[in-house]
Amino acid sequence: MPHQWPTIEYRDETMREGMQIESADISLDDKVRLLDALGETGLPRIVVGSFVSPRYTPQMARIEEVLESFTPNPNVTYTALLVNRRSYERAQRFVPPLTIEDDRPFLNAHLCDVFTRRNFNRSQEEEFASWPGIVESAQQRNVTEAEIRVAAAWGSNFVGEFSLDQRMDILERAHTVWHEAGIPVTSVGFLDPMAWCLPHHVEEQLLAVKERWPHIRRFYLHLHNARGMSLPSAYAAMRALTPNDTLVLDGTVGGIGGCPYCGTGRATGMMATEDFFHMLEGMGIETGVDVAKLIDCAWLLEEIIGRPTFGAVSKAGPRPTSPETWFDPNMPFVETLDQARHFKLGPDSYDGGIYPWREPISSPQRPDSMR
Amino acid sequence: MPHQWPTIEYRDETMREGMQIESADISLDDKVRLLDALGETGLPRIVVGSFVSPRYTPQMARIEEVLESFTPNPNVTYTALLVNRRSYERAQRFVPPLTIEDDRPFLNAHLCDVFTRRNFNRSQEEEFASWPGIVESAQQRNVTEAEIRVAAAWGSNFVGEFSLDQRMDILERAHTVWHEAGIPVTSVGFLDPMAWCLPHHVEEQLLAVKERWPHIRRFYLHLHNARGMSLPSAYAAMRALTPNDTLVLDGTVGGIGGCPYCGTGRATGMMATEDFFHMLEGMGIETGVDVAKLIDCAWLLEEIIGRPTFGAVSKAGPRPTSPETWFDPNMPFVETLDQARHFKLGPDSYDGGIYPWREPISSPQRPDSMR
Repeated sequence: MPHQWPTIEYRDETMREGMQIESADISLDDKVRLLDALGETGLPRIVVGSFVSPRYTPQMARIEEVLESFTPNPNVTYTALLVNRRSYERAQRFVPPLTIEDDRPFLNAHLCDVFTRRNFNRSQEEEFASWPGIVESAQQRNVTEAEIRVAAAWGSNFVGEFSLDQRMDILERAHTVWHEAGIPVTSVGFLDPMAWCLPHHVEEQLLAVKERWPHIRRFYLHLHNARGMSLPSAYAAMRALTPNDTLVLDGTVGGIGGCPYCGTGRATGMMATEDFFHMLEGMGIETGVDVAKLIDCAWLLEEIIGRPTFGAVSKAGPRPTSPETWFDPNMPFVETLDQARHFKLGPDSYDGGIYPWREPISSPQRPDSMR
Repeated sequence: MPHQWPTIEYRDETMREGMQIESADISLDDKVRLLDALGETGLPRIVVGSFVSPRYTPQMARIEEVLESFTPNPNVTYTALLVNRRSYERAQRFVPPLTIEDDRPFLNAHLCDVFTRRNFNRSQEEEFASWPGIVESAQQRNVTEAEIRVAAAWGSNFVGEFSLDQRMDILERAHTVWHEAGIPVTSVGFLDPMAWCLPHHVEEQLLAVKERWPHIRRFYLHLHNARGMSLPSAYAAMRALTPNDTLVLDGTVGGIGGCPYCGTGRATGMMATEDFFHMLEGMGIETGVDVAKLIDCAWLLEEIIGRPTFGAVSKAGPRPTSPETWFDPNMPFVETLDQARHFKLGPDSYDGGIYPWREPISSPQRPDSMR
């Protein structure tokens, strides 16, 4: 029996997680070009950026101009990271095309007090202290469901690894607060800003939540890739969940991303959107996303940031599964990364490559190669 | 209950799969430096290169000189890829330090006839035709166990995807031949030169073998990474197997590698050795391999090939799990890949970085930061 997978909900973070760690000098025009290209890929949810202080994040200083200039695709839900009341006020002007999602409020705390101080200028205790206000606002708005979250969930570059018990303690505390407020918890989130996730820990964690709170069917994972573990962890999460569950995942085109607070900068990365959707396609999961267009975005991104990105299929091309995309049996040696781009640029890419065979390659598996 | 993992046997292919797709002009001295450094990492098995025709693989033309010049570590098993009788003869001169492993002969066929013609100058039919000679030699040598293999197992860039049934047909055919020769099959191998592996297919395949031939307890996977799937697939394989099984995996430092025949060249890649061992370490699996030394090898490799490699932990550093390796709570912004190298080069790497906080970061989780 083939495995039955959970429903996947994907949020592309290229414009937010990605751009926030790139040069603040990337032009408005380039950002708009990239956002417009992303909007044409079939990605259903795109995070356009964050409304934050330009003192800490100059990369987001012109987010208003980006939103004024881009061409929204009506089939895409565009969201932004909002961190406080000022954020909400700034974002409000752009609804629509922006969507402000506040129908499932969350209680969140970082297991690492150092990181939350560095990133948000507040302590873990201050995070806990903010919870009553969030609950009160939720009650006033009559929200019907809520989320519990733990951040820096698997570990911190400043204080080391965290345990399942530590994660469950935070979640338990948050769950109790929502429960006492009479608002059912339907979703759980794990944020991994410092890339400590490991696939077996992700699996163990999701199963622990399912056992403790069987009514939670929505699982949000924000995983970074500094140690190469985000794609294995995403797969492990898909493996651990069932068709009754929804798995919400974040990633970026090219696998770029990170924040300046975590200590690993651009080496932090995320799961590459194009590699993840290529995997889903190989698994027979319908997504409506065009991997070839995602690769176009990765190439555009490389042009904008001036260096190669971390993804794989943007370099080698997707698996050529249909006869029209099969490689030529008589293509010469393909050696360099430039030559490998033939999957998009055509045979000129490998023109002049070594051809060592004394006779042309001819195989009954490729009737078109038979002499 | 924590999952029980199979025994892992790892073969580092940096000098073979890696070097065969890099410049043929890399100096003897550089190759010897890299091989010597690999020998000091704790890796138990290192493939030093291949004895093949310099016409097709000029990168291996000087393998004899490499073997004459390097400093063998007596704790390491050094092997080479041997493809024919001439190979064996050339390799024989270097035993020891080289080990020629012929105690578990294998029958192999490629599902892709185009690829085997391009790579080995012979057809799939010729592969099958070679089997009786291999079996006869095995009988003469009184070998007591054998392996069955299928290559281009999951698909081909020239003829598309292959099915579980197609893989099982080849394996069944090979198993029958060994069975009729009275030599028990104890091992199965899947070779993926064109990087078509997907984690759920790997899992399905291993379970199918376990069901069909429960006596097979050794599973060899040679997985390429052109589509980012080798590490997720390796994890899926670990997940599917049990402590009674042995999983044999190949990979390269930096995740470099590929062949010129497959059509994706240097974009083919493999699982990065350092990322895989970092994962095993995080899973609590004792390996005796020093990830920091593997990272040294990755940096040396980047110096030799003159471009960044594909691995993750060589850029961000391993998860700092012990207090001596924790990052400074008051480190400034770390943004660039160069700044991220502080994990090895020290605080000078991020010297002069933005420090936006009005007060120093001070947290009870890091008593050393308390004022």
